[in-house]
Amino acid sequence: MLSSMSSVPGNVFLDCAAQNPDAGANSTFMLQCISDTYQNAEESSAANVHSFLLVVCGALIFFMQAGFAMLCAGSVRLKNVQNTMLKNLLDACGAALAFFLLGYGIAFGGNDDEGAADQKTFIGTSDYASVGTSSALWFYQYTFSATSVTIVAGTLAERCQMAAYLCYSAVVAGFIYPVVAHALWSHSGFLSHSNNNPFLNSGVIDFAGGAVVHLTGGLVALIATCILGPRRGRFYDAQGEPLESPKEFPGHSVALQLLGTMVLWFGWYGFSPGSALLLGPNSNFGIVAANAAVSTALSGAAGGVTALFSNMWIEERRSGEPHFSIGMAMNGALSGLVASTSGCAVLEPGLAIVTGLIAGWLYMWSSSFLLRIRIDDAVNAIPVHMFNGAWGLLATGLFASPEKMEVTFGYSNHPGLFYSFRNGGVDAALFANQLVGLLFVTGWCLFTMLPFFIWLNYMGWLRADSLEELVGLDLSYHGGSGAGNMGAVKKEYVDAYNRHKSALRKRKTPNLSSSDDLEGSDAATMAAGTKS
Amino acid sequence: MLSSMSSVPGNVFLDCAAQNPDAGANSTFMLQCISDTYQNAEESSAANVHSFLLVVCGALIFFMQAGFAMLCAGSVRLKNVQNTMLKNLLDACGAALAFFLLGYGIAFGGNDDEGAADQKTFIGTSDYASVGTSSALWFYQYTFSATSVTIVAGTLAERCQMAAYLCYSAVVAGFIYPVVAHALWSHSGFLSHSNNNPFLNSGVIDFAGGAVVHLTGGLVALIATCILGPRRGRFYDAQGEPLESPKEFPGHSVALQLLGTMVLWFGWYGFSPGSALLLGPNSNFGIVAANAAVSTALSGAAGGVTALFSNMWIEERRSGEPHFSIGMAMNGALSGLVASTSGCAVLEPGLAIVTGLIAGWLYMWSSSFLLRIRIDDAVNAIPVHMFNGAWGLLATGLFASPEKMEVTFGYSNHPGLFYSFRNGGVDAALFANQLVGLLFVTGWCLFTMLPFFIWLNYMGWLRADSLEELVGLDLSYHGGSGAGNMGAVKKEYVDAYNRHKSALRKRKTPNLSSSDDLEGSDAATMAAGTKS
Amino acid sequence: MLSSMSSVPGNVFLDCAAQNPDAGANSTFMLQCISDTYQNAEESSAANVHSFLLVVCGALIFFMQAGFAMLCAGSVRLKNVQNTMLKNLLDACGAALAFFLLGYGIAFGGNDDEGAADQKTFIGTSDYASVGTSSALWFYQYTFSATSVTIVAGTLAERCQMAAYLCYSAVVAGFIYPVVAHALWSHSGFLSHSNNNPFLNSGVIDFAGGAVVHLTGGLVALIATCILGPRRGRFYDAQGEPLESPKEFPGHSVALQLLGTMVLWFGWYGFSPGSALLLGPNSNFGIVAANAAVSTALSGAAGGVTALFSNMWIEERRSGEPHFSIGMAMNGALSGLVASTSGCAVLEPGLAIVTGLIAGWLYMWSSSFLLRIRIDDAVNAIPVHMFNGAWGLLATGLFASPEKMEVTFGYSNHPGLFYSFRNGGVDAALFANQLVGLLFVTGWCLFTMLPFFIWLNYMGWLRADSLEELVGLDLSYHGGSGAGNMGAVKKEYVDAYNRHKSALRKRKTPNLSSSDDLEGSDAATMAAGTKS
Repeated sequence: MLSSMSSVPGNVFLDCAAQNPDAGANSTFMLQCISDTYQNAEESSAANVHSFLLVVCGALIFFMQAGFAMLCAGSVRLKNVQNTMLKNLLDACGAALAFFLLGYGIAFGGNDDEGAADQKTFIGTSDYASVGTSSALWFYQYTFSATSVTIVAGTLAERCQMAAYLCYSAVVAGFIYPVVAHALWSHSGFLSHSNNNPFLNSGVIDFAGGAVVHLTGGLVALIATCILGPRRGRFYDAQGEPLESPKEFPGHSVALQLLGTMVLWFGWYGFSPGSALLLGPNSNFGIVAANAAVSTALSGAAGGVTALFSNMWIEERRSGEPHFSIGMAMNGALSGLVASTSGCAVLEPGLAIVTGLIAGWLYMWSSSFLLRIRIDDAVNAIPVHMFNGAWGLLATGLFASPEKMEVTFGYSNHPGLFYSFRNGGVDAALFANQLVGLLFVTGWCLFTMLPFFIWLNYMGWLRADSLEELVGLDLSYHGGSGAGNMGAVKKEYVDAYNRHKSALRKRKTPNLSSSDDLEGSDAATMAAGTKS
Repeated sequence: MLSSMSSVPGNVFLDCAAQNPDAGANSTFMLQCISDTYQNAEESSAANVHSFLLVVCGALIFFMQAGFAMLCAGSVRLKNVQNTMLKNLLDACGAALAFFLLGYGIAFGGNDDEGAADQKTFIGTSDYASVGTSSALWFYQYTFSATSVTIVAGTLAERCQMAAYLCYSAVVAGFIYPVVAHALWSHSGFLSHSNNNPFLNSGVIDFAGGAVVHLTGGLVALIATCILGPRRGRFYDAQGEPLESPKEFPGHSVALQLLGTMVLWFGWYGFSPGSALLLGPNSNFGIVAANAAVSTALSGAAGGVTALFSNMWIEERRSGEPHFSIGMAMNGALSGLVASTSGCAVLEPGLAIVTGLIAGWLYMWSSSFLLRIRIDDAVNAIPVHMFNGAWGLLATGLFASPEKMEVTFGYSNHPGLFYSFRNGGVDAALFANQLVGLLFVTGWCLFTMLPFFIWLNYMGWLRADSLEELVGLDLSYHGGSGAGNMGAVKKEYVDAYNRHKSALRKRKTPNLSSSDDLEGSDAATMAAGTKS
Repeated sequence: MLSSMSSVPGNVFLDCAAQNPDAGANSTFMLQCISDTYQNAEESSAANVHSFLLVVCGALIFFMQAGFAMLCAGSVRLKNVQNTMLKNLLDACGAALAFFLLGYGIAFGGNDDEGAADQKTFIGTSDYASVGTSSALWFYQYTFSATSVTIVAGTLAERCQMAAYLCYSAVVAGFIYPVVAHALWSHSGFLSHSNNNPFLNSGVIDFAGGAVVHLTGGLVALIATCILGPRRGRFYDAQGEPLESPKEFPGHSVALQLLGTMVLWFGWYGFSPGSALLLGPNSNFGIVAANAAVSTALSGAAGGVTALFSNMWIEERRSGEPHFSIGMAMNGALSGLVASTSGCAVLEPGLAIVTGLIAGWLYMWSSSFLLRIRIDDAVNAIPVHMFNGAWGLLATGLFASPEKMEVTFGYSNHPGLFYSFRNGGVDAALFANQLVGLLFVTGWCLFTMLPFFIWLNYMGWLRADSLEELVGLDLSYHGGSGAGNMGAVKKEYVDAYNRHKSALRKRKTPNLSSSDDLEGSDAATMAAGTKS
């Protein structure tokens, strides 16, 4: 379509003069006409550019779905690639529909109404099955919600039923995430920084969703994997005896893992700097975005370097054989990125490095802690997103710089603890808010998702059948064709699976999710001897 | 280059005052000087931002080439990866040169001339071997043309000669596509929506090229594969007897297919929302882009979900063994994206979902229909791009909302049929236009490309030699080195191929494209027993 | 954060009137107040959009890291993928920290100070451990520096110690590159085009870093590989006798190579057009960016097509068996992109094609020249980045169009030689500058990096141990786990490596970098028989 519209007049001065030929140059009419014409033109132009940039940044965030997909594809065993890929694609699709029908209304319904910032509500009251007053905002927020959902799938990879996946995804995208987004981000959220009467006169600063997106996603992942249990053979042998050390299930492609990491980092520049656009077209959005980009780059870099070399130092001390662990470097960098998300716009560069450095250490500690308490996370999403989402939220309470807050929000009444200490006072309002935000998100996820996953498990919809897990979910859910990966699974497992399946079919039992009719030890024996 | 220019004056008021020191504040001179200075500044600033955003969106569309490449790479057998990758790269390269030399002139030459919208022409009359009056427009349009060409290569993968590929690519990028673009998009196109005297007082709405790019590419692919014939062993056995059901040739990497799908979806946000920039810097391009982004997201999501679950439902009814088919989900989503392309800016979100839903069903039906009539499409590009390009064009005629048209074009004299029915009238002008557009594109492609491919085939330049197909095009065209994929092909085929090749060489016959000197049954037997 | 700020007044006219109610419409006060309000608003709005676009383009450049990573991943043998991936990730991380601490200060410290363009300095004097006056500029420049570093890693792949990698990366990102950037790009650089008293009244035009980024990176790669030596078995057999023709080490995935190429090309649109933003918000940055995009597209396309078909023609003449070499097409395209980088904004489209065409030929010649003189470059980075970085610099001196220079810089006192010849004169000022620029960069890299790599080699920190190289760096540096690639290496090599390692451990010698204790012939024999 090469159409042209002429909303801007040919010549403002002449047009105004033509409107009222009797008015002289010195008339109030002329001056006001010219001034108002420019004001309209400038506001409209600014609104259009702003809206367009939201779309561009939303697209960057959308692309993070490809990053998560590649990270997962590289991290799982070949026999589960197809299953993992489908889940990633469905995250993007399902979140769009769920966020359109329900999520956006819950999170931001009525957000632009007169007086929305004067009240506090639990969920939004309008804009259901609608994109609200701004398509651009809807699109941008949709991409955030999809990101939150997609974090969970990685953790549960290789052992979760498709039915369970479909249920929890819809619930998270349509309800769990939007409630958190409403509380922290909408004008009428009870912890919102933009409410006119914010909590402790400050409200939570979660600039780009370290808590709303990453902490929420990571918490749901943690709850789910606790109920779901580890992959067979990861912590226990065939007799159910705990292994001395966890069995590693190496992913099938480091190149795809690295690609995923870099795509995520790339998308993060839409995620964190892009969030500056939410300040509106009349803000310092460009300067704020640049500050956020610097924090993002430095914190990610510090996280990656810290985790890589700290891990080498520890290995050297323990075994004398240090290795350069690319997993440490990748997850350390992602941890630094997550940790910078809450405060990216209000961190000084030096403190962004400190945030990332601590994120790298926190990743190392938390991932080994999860192994010690035998919680299985197929892609280490919990250390990256939950632990560092929480740390980033608190880091903002510690490090938010009054200068950067001034640039970002136009005021800086309650900066981070670090600055208030330095100035000799103790102004803990922001830190307290961040802490309450952390508690709220944690409580909300536990309160809703723990019963939900327990119920899913009780119904037998959560955990894939033992044999399904052995032969890989690609064969059981996707017919195995298309992946060209069947060589990855021992033929005897596939045969056992097929026997089992035809036995079930004879008995007219289409549901495969229970393995009661197998000798328990059969599956367990196989699990222990799993080849890949 | 860190240079600085001072096109904006230090202080507008003082500068104007200095220009004419005798003029008082109330003088016509001062007011006009200030007004004109701002007008120039604002127009120049808007033009620069607009031009820059065109470049950014063009880059996003360019990146779709990587998406097509990965989709194809994942979908073909390992022995043809190198060949497929080269074609994708050459699409991007060849289209740039062909569009520069010929295509742009044909499509948009003279488009910005005075009175261009007052006349109707078949092709453009100037701007050959030139980027015309705007580098930004040329670049943006080039990326569209490259997309159109690249659709064809996927369908013909694994059996088309390089010579044929080079010929048809040049013809499509340099002539076939530009004529369609001229008819529907240039001001003087006979079906253009921006002509001053458009067809039936409306003209075709093909906002982002559902017809111009996808339908055209898909039609060429259909015509080509009809002449080229299916891959050996796909529908017929060694004796030429039809198989009971088509043999599946599973691609070698689902992860790359998914990556390709996500990259395409990402690039679509440059393709569809980006097209709002073609409305010009003084339009509502930001709002329009956001509307387009919402349609794109929702229609793609609806297509993927619909195809996935409808296919499961049908499998359940037919065989009692439903599978989650990731191919269905991916191609369904792509179908939804294609279908939304024509009308993205003028669809209400709810109707975008309906458009995507029908696209999912249309994909299912058309891909199985093509199999039934034994038309072989290596990557399912025809169902995705041709059928849904056509559907999207008609959907716009049905669903174009007057409100969105007002925002987009500034007028809404002929909305979609759905709205005119709802208002009690029957205004079929737009729908008729869309139908005529469909017929024109179909007729044009048939009229030009059918003889062309018949001629290519007659000359023996179209179909790769039987043995070449068996050993894979990587070995025959690319020497086989570099791919590390030789294990994928049976050694006896490679030996037969090498014997055949050296026999030919002895007879000083450099052309390998005919297998007359082979016992026909030899190649056929092998084809039937092809291993991968 | 959905906060809103009201920096733009409700109504400019009424606000000004309210500020001074006694002033009539014809008062100097009103006119000046209105004019100044708009001036502030427009400048602030332009600055914000400009800053935001810098972030978006910086993100695109950052994404080139993923492109280099995939190109390298596809080009190396499976046993070195993990090592190569880690280096690519560390490039992004390490460059951020090094550029923050040192590099930015060296390159651009004090660049925005009053009078910076009046003096000439060797390095910057401030902004160390700081992002200077503009976060956006810092971020954009950081992504350039990371690109420069990452070029080197590819060339040295498969045989360089991690220690050496860490040392040279830090030195290049923190010192070598920034000095070049200062000389050519900062206002006070002695070859800068933006200095008030530039060299020969012109200064070097290196618009987007063909010399600063690509030539520098390529030169360091050349110097390093000369000292490091070729991969074992590449040019010499087990007895150290030169092979008749170099042994090819085919990469393990053409699909990843192609993906890398396309990602790089995509990122180039942030690299070259994005550099228009460095002209500042009041320049013609949008028009200039579009010109740069056209040059980038056409030069890349011409390079790819030229190298592909010229190589076929030569093969046909030599052996009668032409092949379509995808490596030629990919590296030819990349060569065209590199060659267009220096002059992209000031080249006419036709001359951009000529530049790319010559780049394709130069690639062919230089890559075969390097093989003849037995210089091993694992990814052909030297022909692509060094030779064509140099060619692009000179091409700008030949082809810079006065018209485009006017649009870009606002003046065109010294255009390219081609134009001055055409106008009958000989104005070699620009060409001389480009030549001096080339000599300076070459001299600087030789002068600093040659002793540096000789020293690294002398210390035994440069070259990986023979056995490490045989078994692959993934096993030796990364413990081998995680890549799932161990099948790629002969078991006897792994056993030999493990024996060697435990022997060392017994003697408490943690350093593996010397193979003195191995029978030299043992490693050499193995090297000659290396399987993959």
